[in-house]
Amino acid sequence: MTIANRHPGVRIGLDVGGTKIAGIARADDGTVLATVRSATGSGGEAVLSGILDAVHALRAQLDTVVELLSIGIGIPGLVDVAEGRVLHAVNLGVESLAISARVRDAIGVPCHVENDVKAAALGAASLRDDSAPIAYLNLGTGVAAGVVVDGRIWRGSRGTAGEVGHFVVDPNGRSCGCGQRGCIETLCGGGALARAWGRDGEWPVRDILDAAAVGDPTAIVLRDDLFRGVAAAVRALVLSFDVETVVIDGGLTALADRLESGIRAALRSDATTSPFLQSLRLDERIDMLPAHSPVAAIGAALLGTALADTTSFDKEIVPHG
Amino acid sequence: MTIANRHPGVRIGLDVGGTKIAGIARADDGTVLATVRSATGSGGEAVLSGILDAVHALRAQLDTVVELLSIGIGIPGLVDVAEGRVLHAVNLGVESLAISARVRDAIGVPCHVENDVKAAALGAASLRDDSAPIAYLNLGTGVAAGVVVDGRIWRGSRGTAGEVGHFVVDPNGRSCGCGQRGCIETLCGGGALARAWGRDGEWPVRDILDAAAVGDPTAIVLRDDLFRGVAAAVRALVLSFDVETVVIDGGLTALADRLESGIRAALRSDATTSPFLQSLRLDERIDMLPAHSPVAAIGAALLGTALADTTSFDKEIVPHG
Repeated sequence: MTIANRHPGVRIGLDVGGTKIAGIARADDGTVLATVRSATGSGGEAVLSGILDAVHALRAQLDTVVELLSIGIGIPGLVDVAEGRVLHAVNLGVESLAISARVRDAIGVPCHVENDVKAAALGAASLRDDSAPIAYLNLGTGVAAGVVVDGRIWRGSRGTAGEVGHFVVDPNGRSCGCGQRGCIETLCGGGALARAWGRDGEWPVRDILDAAAVGDPTAIVLRDDLFRGVAAAVRALVLSFDVETVVIDGGLTALADRLESGIRAALRSDATTSPFLQSLRLDERIDMLPAHSPVAAIGAALLGTALADTTSFDKEIVPHG
Repeated sequence: MTIANRHPGVRIGLDVGGTKIAGIARADDGTVLATVRSATGSGGEAVLSGILDAVHALRAQLDTVVELLSIGIGIPGLVDVAEGRVLHAVNLGVESLAISARVRDAIGVPCHVENDVKAAALGAASLRDDSAPIAYLNLGTGVAAGVVVDGRIWRGSRGTAGEVGHFVVDPNGRSCGCGQRGCIETLCGGGALARAWGRDGEWPVRDILDAAAVGDPTAIVLRDDLFRGVAAAVRALVLSFDVETVVIDGGLTALADRLESGIRAALRSDATTSPFLQSLRLDERIDMLPAHSPVAAIGAALLGTALADTTSFDKEIVPHG
């Protein structure tokens, strides 16, 4: 077989975040052939330029015989998957952008767009040793989950699948941007915790843990909220989908062991009065990823392969805070 | 074509409840060819006898050329689907019973067993005009849901799929049999409401609604709990699975319009402060079945046809109160 007979195909996956784009070019056997990191702009045209620049930067690293099969993009916001349009990407200053059409016009290959948490869920599932369904719980500014079954993202009817961040667990809790009080997100969302903490700092949640460790009463309450909130999210996912494992990821994972041990402890202590919960062994069913795991870009690359979804109903697209 | 060439097949479906067995013989085109109602006994041997008697009673109504293809049984309790064994069927006084094996020994056809709520979910889904995924929320002594996707029951990893009754929505709420406080079931489970009401009566939940209608303060609180609890269960199902429709069934549906209008009102009023929730139009997304809808027996009959499940992981089976 000569080299000319081998035309390996690659898929590009871009994780387009509020501040940076992380991209890979991935062969179908999982090999990552190129990577890129660049800044995201603000506003539709800047975001699009950033996407195209990242694509060009990846292609420049690839052998010319390599065929680009597809481009996949994970982006925070509400995504109309059928059209490949993102809506209400508040962090990027984008209200509505027809990403798939624009990228396909510019590059000439199919382009698939998905909500970043769902894309990351797909990537996380692809890296696991078994093919059991998983929930992927993203702890970042907000809190949301994705569920992957048989290599496919669970897509619900109106875009609220996995929105465990907006389960109310305490009617007397803090107010949430979604308009309810006492949502899980008010307990363990990075943005909500930073607002509740109210002190400037580069990384409020880390400051909360540091201050709690030396006895600050406000910090101790917020630290407990963080752990309890994540525990509630894990329970919500197990009592609905009953996945065996909840994979935990997102910006908060940089807190590493302190976060992981706190979540496990909360899962155990919340079960003290309940043989039912104890029997579920929830503390053994979480899998926290190392910080900066590239699952979002990997999952984005896989969007071109996840052809059929468990559900594919597109009703009105729902904006929410 | 002579009659001898036509050997229609039927599937028997039995809904084995705490007090009665409801059974059907169903052709694969949906025609119900025979029905039976009988009393359930208590204890494993009595339950088994009741099952076999119901099977014989159905067969006696069928033409002799009809072939019995399978027997399906929905039963309250934890079911090991692979083995066809029911565990902890407290209402029937059964701790462990190998139903499939015993029935197959006696009758000679395959026998499939499933938890009654999951079987009913399958039946409810089969009767709908479209094939979109649904959640089926059963409001009875307890509260639990089943989810059906593409004609298959969603089965989780350890038997807790759809256990929305044990989502905690108020840390200061009433104690639940599961050991937690403030579960959804403590708000809208028939058993929990009857205990909270504390007055004898044939049908405590109806008595609560009647008393609330004439201003009884305790009843008003409990009526509000009922509606709020069901609304929370609907939200839990939409914010996790994001089904388009939550089908509502179970013993409480005999309360008919009073229950349905109360649930819708709670869904609307809970959304007052949240444009997000309002946009979901949850009050338009419930479908309450008429009382005594035969979905459980229909779903049980279909168990013989639902060959592949979305998930089929059998971990340790989990008992819970």
